[in-house]
Amino acid sequence: MTSAPYKLYLPQEELPQAWYNLRADMPVKPAPLLNPQTKQPLSRDEMTPVFVEATVDQELDDNKAYFDIPGPVMDYYRTFRPSPLCRAYALEKELDTPAKIYYKFEGNNTSGSHKLNSAAAVAYYAKQQGLDGLATETGAGQWGTALSMASAFFGLDLRVFMVKLSAEQKPYRRAVMETYGATVTASPSITTEIGRSILAKDPDCKGSLGCAISEAIEYALTQNKTRYALGSMLNSVLLHQSVIGLESRQAMEMLGETPDIVIGCAGGGSNLGGLICAYMRDKLQGKPAPRFIAVEPENCPSLTRGRFAYDYGDTGHMTPLVKMYTLGGDFMPPSDHAGGLRYHGMSPIVSQLYYDGYLDEARAVAQSRVFEAACRFARVETILPAPESAHAICAAIDEAIRCRESGQSKTILFGLTGTGNYDLAAYSSYKAGTMIDNRPSDELIGQGLATLPSMD
Amino acid sequence: MTSAPYKLYLPQEELPQAWYNLRADMPVKPAPLLNPQTKQPLSRDEMTPVFVEATVDQELDDNKAYFDIPGPVMDYYRTFRPSPLCRAYALEKELDTPAKIYYKFEGNNTSGSHKLNSAAAVAYYAKQQGLDGLATETGAGQWGTALSMASAFFGLDLRVFMVKLSAEQKPYRRAVMETYGATVTASPSITTEIGRSILAKDPDCKGSLGCAISEAIEYALTQNKTRYALGSMLNSVLLHQSVIGLESRQAMEMLGETPDIVIGCAGGGSNLGGLICAYMRDKLQGKPAPRFIAVEPENCPSLTRGRFAYDYGDTGHMTPLVKMYTLGGDFMPPSDHAGGLRYHGMSPIVSQLYYDGYLDEARAVAQSRVFEAACRFARVETILPAPESAHAICAAIDEAIRCRESGQSKTILFGLTGTGNYDLAAYSSYKAGTMIDNRPSDELIGQGLATLPSMD
Repeated sequence: MTSAPYKLYLPQEELPQAWYNLRADMPVKPAPLLNPQTKQPLSRDEMTPVFVEATVDQELDDNKAYFDIPGPVMDYYRTFRPSPLCRAYALEKELDTPAKIYYKFEGNNTSGSHKLNSAAAVAYYAKQQGLDGLATETGAGQWGTALSMASAFFGLDLRVFMVKLSAEQKPYRRAVMETYGATVTASPSITTEIGRSILAKDPDCKGSLGCAISEAIEYALTQNKTRYALGSMLNSVLLHQSVIGLESRQAMEMLGETPDIVIGCAGGGSNLGGLICAYMRDKLQGKPAPRFIAVEPENCPSLTRGRFAYDYGDTGHMTPLVKMYTLGGDFMPPSDHAGGLRYHGMSPIVSQLYYDGYLDEARAVAQSRVFEAACRFARVETILPAPESAHAICAAIDEAIRCRESGQSKTILFGLTGTGNYDLAAYSSYKAGTMIDNRPSDELIGQGLATLPSMD
Repeated sequence: MTSAPYKLYLPQEELPQAWYNLRADMPVKPAPLLNPQTKQPLSRDEMTPVFVEATVDQELDDNKAYFDIPGPVMDYYRTFRPSPLCRAYALEKELDTPAKIYYKFEGNNTSGSHKLNSAAAVAYYAKQQGLDGLATETGAGQWGTALSMASAFFGLDLRVFMVKLSAEQKPYRRAVMETYGATVTASPSITTEIGRSILAKDPDCKGSLGCAISEAIEYALTQNKTRYALGSMLNSVLLHQSVIGLESRQAMEMLGETPDIVIGCAGGGSNLGGLICAYMRDKLQGKPAPRFIAVEPENCPSLTRGRFAYDYGDTGHMTPLVKMYTLGGDFMPPSDHAGGLRYHGMSPIVSQLYYDGYLDEARAVAQSRVFEAACRFARVETILPAPESAHAICAAIDEAIRCRESGQSKTILFGLTGTGNYDLAAYSSYKAGTMIDNRPSDELIGQGLATLPSMD
């Protein structure tokens, strides 16, 4: 075995041509989405007024293992994929660890993240369906940027509701979306009924993903030939993100490597689900598999302190009921700088895998530790990571240090979902020593969980 | 010949192991740097108090064709190189052109540009020499970011004088340099004598590269174990940037392609010199070669409206005299958004090649046309380009449209030097229709040229 290159790009002809649907191999399928009124599983006809049709079909299909990636989506993918599998030689040296550290880097595109993988699919299918436009929410701004890019490419209008905290922290995120032709509204806004009602209660509300989702759905439902698109959480989004894991595994195999540990950050779960899918398939099929670790922010700890229950996906109760780990749709996470992880719930697939013990571990980390890891990584590996991605870096560094202490040479693979080019206000705050860790009290968590809907 | 992939990354083992020195093949060498007092060629001993020693040796060597890239620099390169050679299928389709358009994309690193190629070398050599730190200037912020990253990696202090206009337009550029540990000062500043004297004349001065260079040199000379590093212009910088052209040619050859036209944006000339070097070698050796086009901003047109003469490299007359195309060291370009091209002079190598007819053409373009091209490119090719790079895009689109009109299928290669992630204020201005084209009057150009030093 020759030593791994610093960056391995799969040859274009070896790119995955189909998305992998983890559910096909899960012994217990994720629970279905429910109509909140009837508490019955949502039908296709109930979903298509809100979501793009082809994605609804993907959402509802628990059995089909592979979905062909449409040609125009493959063509678009090829403008920014494959993403590199990187060997972190410099970080290994910095940590003086016997561990081998690999990361799959999804930030080499203008959206700066993996979100473009799903945005490309949704925008393509929307155009195919003859729609005029899409509406969506964005937290950190990466999903909104990705959908702006894909909407511009396929020729669709786009309205983005951006979590107000992020819109204030990242004015240039907003500008890049507008450059690609999107209309951006800070959420909560006076554009929607739900936004107005939230602002009536708390005029200074900085928003949350849950709240921005409500506004985007309301907006889509009130426009002509417009549908809502969600950038995480959904089964169909995890399906699109499977390219991360499929490519990762192919590249690792080219190097003759098998990871002992796979680490992903977890907000809504789209990156994590995508990253782990190819190795998780082994585990679901009873074969040897790596240890899977999900890393979430201490201030929004859905897996580690939430409850596995049916809940709304949003604050305004516009969404179906979703069986997932949740902190309650009304949970408003304390301020922090990982806007993309400020979500009260978790993908039903990831939730079910965690509940059933296939996802081995979830851990929550404080943001000052996350930024410490981010700066350490940036200095030696040259990439300035997104705060979201740095959650995975933090855990990878911890695991590598554990290897140094135990003398074990483990192979670690983590997902570097994106770049921090729009997160400089956060980095400045960390450098200036003004960053505060905000662990929610048990009381605050309890308040959120108390709002879970009754399932009687 | 199979069709080219969208992105071609050279295998790591095929990366160039040596830099190519264009001067070795030039029939007329660039004129030597002169001591402004004596008007005699500058000696090594006169240069080493200002510049890092190893780079001085590279600067003065007109004959050695190849310089081995030191191992630690190669290791650092491998964290962000190779850069991809991209086939612009989507742009070709958008333009409905029979031309084949390729671009070498240097923006896939946190500095967002090709500048890291030279920063890595300078920082490594500085550390080898036992220095404590470096001082430099930055315009658009890309060089400053690159040198911040390389200085952090190799363990050096860094002071960056940033053109005030850019510092104001791009607060997050400053923050990313600070994140990597640099100290950033907006120029002109009260830190240096030269800065104070410029501010005394014009308290509202927005600065220029020439002025920031003066401040950085003065600062370096007044500190212990500190040297000045310049990110463009110098022979040694073009040497380091040769990796762009060497990789481009290798990748084109793997595809069985030979460009008919090679297009680069031109500020100080480092990208252009690097990009064209491998094909220019053919031309210098009398072999068939593509047509070379340099693209500069209309508001700072050193090649198209400047004079080929000895001039200072800076505003404060701290530098040696340089034989180059220049608008005069006191020329203050009208405001625009391509800070990286706001420089009154041009690399001596590029200047000599242009004067001797090896560089076929220089053209100046207005910034509104540049941003129009940038947005068109971004929409279909997914990458948001730096305004500097978009000068090359603009010319490439013009050439491709010419091919459509003539029915000729030419092969075009252009350099996409970097990303516009920190240029959103400029994009917003373009989108809002508030961007102004600022072609300097003949009178203003004449005033600049009138300040050229007498060579009697």
